Amino acid sequence: MREKQKPAKGFLFAGINVAIKRNGKNDLGLILSETEASAAAVFTANLFQAAPVLISRSRVRSGKARAILVNSGNANCGTGSDGLKAALKTGAALAKHLRIREWSVLLASTGVIGEPLPFQKIINGIPRLVSCASTQGFEDFETAIMTTDTKKKISCRAVKMAGKEVRILGLAKGAGMIQPQMATMLAFVLTDARVKSHALARLLKESVDTSFNRITVDGDTSTNDTLFALANGASRVSLAPGKPGWMNFSKAIKEVCLELAGMIAADGEGASRWFYVQARGAKTRADAEKIARRIANSPLVKTAISAADPNWGRIIAAAGISGAKFNVQKTSLYLISADGRRRLEILKRGARSLKYRGRARENTAARLLSESGFRILFDAGQGQGDFEMLTCDFTQEYVKLNAEYRS
Amino acid sequence: MREKQKPAKGFLFAGINVAIKRNGKNDLGLILSETEASAAAVFTANLFQAAPVLISRSRVRSGKARAILVNSGNANCGTGSDGLKAALKTGAALAKHLRIREWSVLLASTGVIGEPLPFQKIINGIPRLVSCASTQGFEDFETAIMTTDTKKKISCRAVKMAGKEVRILGLAKGAGMIQPQMATMLAFVLTDARVKSHALARLLKESVDTSFNRITVDGDTSTNDTLFALANGASRVSLAPGKPGWMNFSKAIKEVCLELAGMIAADGEGASRWFYVQARGAKTRADAEKIARRIANSPLVKTAISAADPNWGRIIAAAGISGAKFNVQKTSLYLISADGRRRLEILKRGARSLKYRGRARENTAARLLSESGFRILFDAGQGQGDFEMLTCDFTQEYVKLNAEYRS
Repeated sequence: MREKQKPAKGFLFAGINVAIKRNGKNDLGLILSETEASAAAVFTANLFQAAPVLISRSRVRSGKARAILVNSGNANCGTGSDGLKAALKTGAALAKHLRIREWSVLLASTGVIGEPLPFQKIINGIPRLVSCASTQGFEDFETAIMTTDTKKKISCRAVKMAGKEVRILGLAKGAGMIQPQMATMLAFVLTDARVKSHALARLLKESVDTSFNRITVDGDTSTNDTLFALANGASRVSLAPGKPGWMNFSKAIKEVCLELAGMIAADGEGASRWFYVQARGAKTRADAEKIARRIANSPLVKTAISAADPNWGRIIAAAGISGAKFNVQKTSLYLISADGRRRLEILKRGARSLKYRGRARENTAARLLSESGFRILFDAGQGQGDFEMLTCDFTQEYVKLNAEYRS
Repeated sequence: MREKQKPAKGFLFAGINVAIKRNGKNDLGLILSETEASAAAVFTANLFQAAPVLISRSRVRSGKARAILVNSGNANCGTGSDGLKAALKTGAALAKHLRIREWSVLLASTGVIGEPLPFQKIINGIPRLVSCASTQGFEDFETAIMTTDTKKKISCRAVKMAGKEVRILGLAKGAGMIQPQMATMLAFVLTDARVKSHALARLLKESVDTSFNRITVDGDTSTNDTLFALANGASRVSLAPGKPGWMNFSKAIKEVCLELAGMIAADGEGASRWFYVQARGAKTRADAEKIARRIANSPLVKTAISAADPNWGRIIAAAGISGAKFNVQKTSLYLISADGRRRLEILKRGARSLKYRGRARENTAARLLSESGFRILFDAGQGQGDFEMLTCDFTQEYVKLNAEYRS
């Protein structure tokens, strides 16, 4: 049911350059719903929150929105009351130009922290931005939200029900600074279904738990992470939990979130490959999560993976210091190939498996690690707790990119 | 009172190559006390513990030891009961050769996890190792415990009291995989004072809290981390808590631990500079520790520092996601130069300080970050909780070293 590049109905998109970025690339984006849409959002868990996050958090409580104004190149964070005023001015200018209510404009920013937002550039750009808006403009919008991203992150679904069709379009950016509570820097899930805002909010929360909250690039969480969902009803299909079509619709929303999260993990800054880390057999799900996160975030594990080195001692060392309690004598460790057909038992009952000996086995493991999509499976062997993460390796390119980010 | 390279009395040292390492460098080390010494230890908090850790943990409970046998090139971890047997054999061979009791031999290993310990090579090397042992052999010992270390880590003190002198010698190795609960891979604190083992154990614990537990290189903690302390009484000076000389002695022990910890942080794998991270003004000391650790372990902060980039947004983002609760409106951030003479106020009441504007200030900050020993000071502004960490930057060289560690 996947349909590439077919946006949800009733949304207009635009992306232009207003010289926030000095390299001429797009840096101002707009999503406009032709009618008032149900709105929901999930924001960063960081105590430091950017001005647009503070404003949008308050506005989205209304459950309604018409437009989302996004800039890249400046995070508008750590900017105090001046930053709030600047963000409010940009939203007010858009609302005035569109003749919509100010509170129906949601805001998001991404870029360097602590620099004053060049709000006048944004305000001056608004007439041009609005005049560019079109139903097919979502790729322009996507380029306007990208920073260190090397690839566009777009996911579409069409769900057919009773002769009608509901469409979902997901757009995201993010390649680093991605983890624990809420993952992607910015993501937008748009649908032309008619959904009440509280149902949309609940569905969004569930979708985040099984997607964005499971990816990690470098263990840091941004001050600006935002996920917005808008449902504008342009398909004239009404959906609600427990009613016909809801299951398929919610499944498609979750798929879009998972696909966007996967694209972010795969585009980890300087990453050469992405992979799964699964912890199972822990006493509780929380323990499994601790183990999986610790392995997925360990710089030593991630650098070994970048060299396709099956240095499994680093994996068990990470598990052992995760804070989860388990009996080492019951633990096992497996490496599973991307296609699921090879499964190497490395550790058994806390010691190297008899099946894992010699240079040939090491070479098999190295080959398995050299391709994206493999799985590190740590089994604590004492319960039902299970948790899976999606992550990527650490390369010299990661350090280079992040050292030179502002220069 | 610092005296370089003057060991504590009554200890012999040796370091030789027995071909565990293929590059011909020393890989087997011995510390031998001429008489039975009081012994204390602190071990890794990792649930996965190497065979020598399990054995030494049990033996050191006696409070006595005569010898410490250490190998590099193989961690003897994840090796199950075979690993335990192998470690026991090496200790038994040394005990037999020296005609000392088996349980008075402490063991430590460092190197790759999961490979069988080549115990026969060690056993065959013991006669030569013992014949090399001398009071001046501590540099050979030091080279025998080094892995990715680029520098020897040796710290000496002499404490004069009532016409007599007590000496302390500290030896350590460690450059990566160093953090939270217990820091250095391996460290040895030797003194010729006469100290009861329970007093030695308490002093060692205190010294670790203010030294090794405050350094971090990459947030990982090894399966083999071990700190041993031996006090053999060869100086004929008896010391005890509350008695004359104890204050000076305990201060000197702490200084040695701090100096060794500093050497480890400064020798962080591929690090180009080391620095302090201090969190203060938190509600509790535990909160301050969370903030300081999170900043000190953030790959984004560490890569920015490697480029001397005052990208302070990453610092506050790390503080904000540390798990400590604070009111953002009360926070401040300072950068303080290594000599303590420059103090840049960057963040005030949660927003960029009015004093920190423009390219000139940024250049001042960049100069400040380009030299080891500067301090990042985050003030949560709401309590007395204070914690300081010592850490180093993240460079491309770090990734290179850790990707290629086993190849």
